[in-house]
Amino acid sequence: MKINALVAPHATQPLSSGQIALRSVQAQDVKIEILYCGVCHSDLHMARNEWGVSNYPLVPGHEIVGRVVETGKSVSRFQAGDLVGVGVMVDSCRECHFCQQQEEQYCEAGWTATYNGTDKYTGGSTWGGYAQHVVADQHFVVAIPTNLPLAGVAPLLCAGVTVWSPLRYGNVKAGDRVGVVGLGGLGHMAVKLASALGAEVTLFTTSPQKGEDALRLGAKRVVISRDAAQMAACQASLDLILDCVSAPHDLDPYLATLKTNGKLVLVGIPEQPHPSPNVSPIVNRRLSISGSSIGSIKETQDMLDFCGQHAITADIELIAGEAIETAFARMLRGDVKYRFVIDMQATRW
Amino acid sequence: MKINALVAPHATQPLSSGQIALRSVQAQDVKIEILYCGVCHSDLHMARNEWGVSNYPLVPGHEIVGRVVETGKSVSRFQAGDLVGVGVMVDSCRECHFCQQQEEQYCEAGWTATYNGTDKYTGGSTWGGYAQHVVADQHFVVAIPTNLPLAGVAPLLCAGVTVWSPLRYGNVKAGDRVGVVGLGGLGHMAVKLASALGAEVTLFTTSPQKGEDALRLGAKRVVISRDAAQMAACQASLDLILDCVSAPHDLDPYLATLKTNGKLVLVGIPEQPHPSPNVSPIVNRRLSISGSSIGSIKETQDMLDFCGQHAITADIELIAGEAIETAFARMLRGDVKYRFVIDMQATRW
Repeated sequence: MKINALVAPHATQPLSSGQIALRSVQAQDVKIEILYCGVCHSDLHMARNEWGVSNYPLVPGHEIVGRVVETGKSVSRFQAGDLVGVGVMVDSCRECHFCQQQEEQYCEAGWTATYNGTDKYTGGSTWGGYAQHVVADQHFVVAIPTNLPLAGVAPLLCAGVTVWSPLRYGNVKAGDRVGVVGLGGLGHMAVKLASALGAEVTLFTTSPQKGEDALRLGAKRVVISRDAAQMAACQASLDLILDCVSAPHDLDPYLATLKTNGKLVLVGIPEQPHPSPNVSPIVNRRLSISGSSIGSIKETQDMLDFCGQHAITADIELIAGEAIETAFARMLRGDVKYRFVIDMQATRW
Repeated sequence: MKINALVAPHATQPLSSGQIALRSVQAQDVKIEILYCGVCHSDLHMARNEWGVSNYPLVPGHEIVGRVVETGKSVSRFQAGDLVGVGVMVDSCRECHFCQQQEEQYCEAGWTATYNGTDKYTGGSTWGGYAQHVVADQHFVVAIPTNLPLAGVAPLLCAGVTVWSPLRYGNVKAGDRVGVVGLGGLGHMAVKLASALGAEVTLFTTSPQKGEDALRLGAKRVVISRDAAQMAACQASLDLILDCVSAPHDLDPYLATLKTNGKLVLVGIPEQPHPSPNVSPIVNRRLSISGSSIGSIKETQDMLDFCGQHAITADIELIAGEAIETAFARMLRGDVKYRFVIDMQATRW
């Protein structure tokens, strides 16, 4: 079935309206009319082939919310009219240790990306959410709480679960002191979610003008990370830090703000490694540096349910599809609070 | 009370026989006649002031076993004649969160080192185990199982507990796959202890000639870390790696041998940071790099009890005190299997 989409024809050409062919609806598939799709920084990297793995034509988008319009004959979990979401994965091996224990994001065979992945049925590419429709196996479709403004839900599907997963894996609970480095798409969700979990959140930023926003989003304290005195004032105070900054940066000042046994969790992958951290505090105070990659389908559903209970959505700026290149340009300047979301119904194809 | 000891008079002078004054036995103190003291690499660093914190004169030694010869009036746990040990710490604040939960090695006020520390009663230096006697608070004295050859117990007090603590903190259990990097004083204890815990141990070494030893000590597999094919053959196979090498080295090949969720634990502190690890596998497979510093008094006692049950001691080479500089020279060449231990009764003062 042919549908309209925003297509990157090549790494050096802008996205423009085009057509793609989705696979026909299989027994376990859900066909979704896309209402909103978040604009993740990785969409820009992939559109421009900055990670060297892009195949063209390419349709980005993995923060998808929409409404079910058709279900395969074996679909039990959804029916036409349901509000649903699709995130970063649309398939996995289903058989390995990790898939069996509902951690598909660590599938040993490698999960299938929502776009630029290999569709198991067609052998061709998977197509992302900058489009009118998407088809996905019901296992990789999540239910959206009906009380949330839908456009702000879209970024939860990637940015939200990417910070939710390490908060949960790190057992963050009420009263814990959590640091968040960087107030961007991921960071602003980390502040909201950690605060809603009852943690006392410290936001580290290089931008003093973001301080007020951070407090509004739930942070208890804002620390300008370039200010040595402010950094010194929060030595050994935090249980866990979610470092949401992808650019290479010095980790040592953040390690110093961790309590003994504290955890620094990286969710961004820099193009060049960070400067090498000093081992002394890591050994002497039993610190850890770890990472976390998106989140499982179960975690995505748990996070959405939690967001429904706590009325949490992303802070977004809504755009029509035609504005995508302008949005990309503004993202590169850090000029977005805090996620662009494409309104498919406002888009002229 | 004056006693004989091996004294470093200055960073540039060899250790030689001399006299030091121990504090008088306080109410909670145990006076121990030292029988054996292990020679830790840090003793050499401290004797030579290689960490820049040494005060002279200095008496090294924090792998002490001996026999109680006198007890203070409030001592309940020991009596004259008991076989006991003293490790790296002889005091701590006793009041902070970590002291209260029996993790004195992370005392927030800083624990008192067995030598080159500040004696809380005299205000002077603490004196280490290259000596005839030591005086320590009973809380920092551990009981030695009576079934073990005593000289081989001495290295357990530092090398043993330094690898035991992260094995326990990392919940290593029967069937786990544990890697050990480096077969030195710490590494050879890590192989023995992890094996005795039921783990399947892989020893990484740059020295093919150490392979046979590693297998004898309990390793199931020896991997020559400079052999890319051997390293490739154990990709994604390990749950936890204890990295016992202090020299700066590339961590990436070891990260590659960890399963998803695997932990790389550093127990050595390099003078220069290791080359910076790649973040991709850390994020994509939720790996962690952490550290661990010695172990608590409780962990030391638990480890000694475990060693008693499993008949584990260190592989040692016994020397008289006069041979300490020769031993230091051989340690620098890596020519020791796997710990020198000073026999105090064979030493001419």
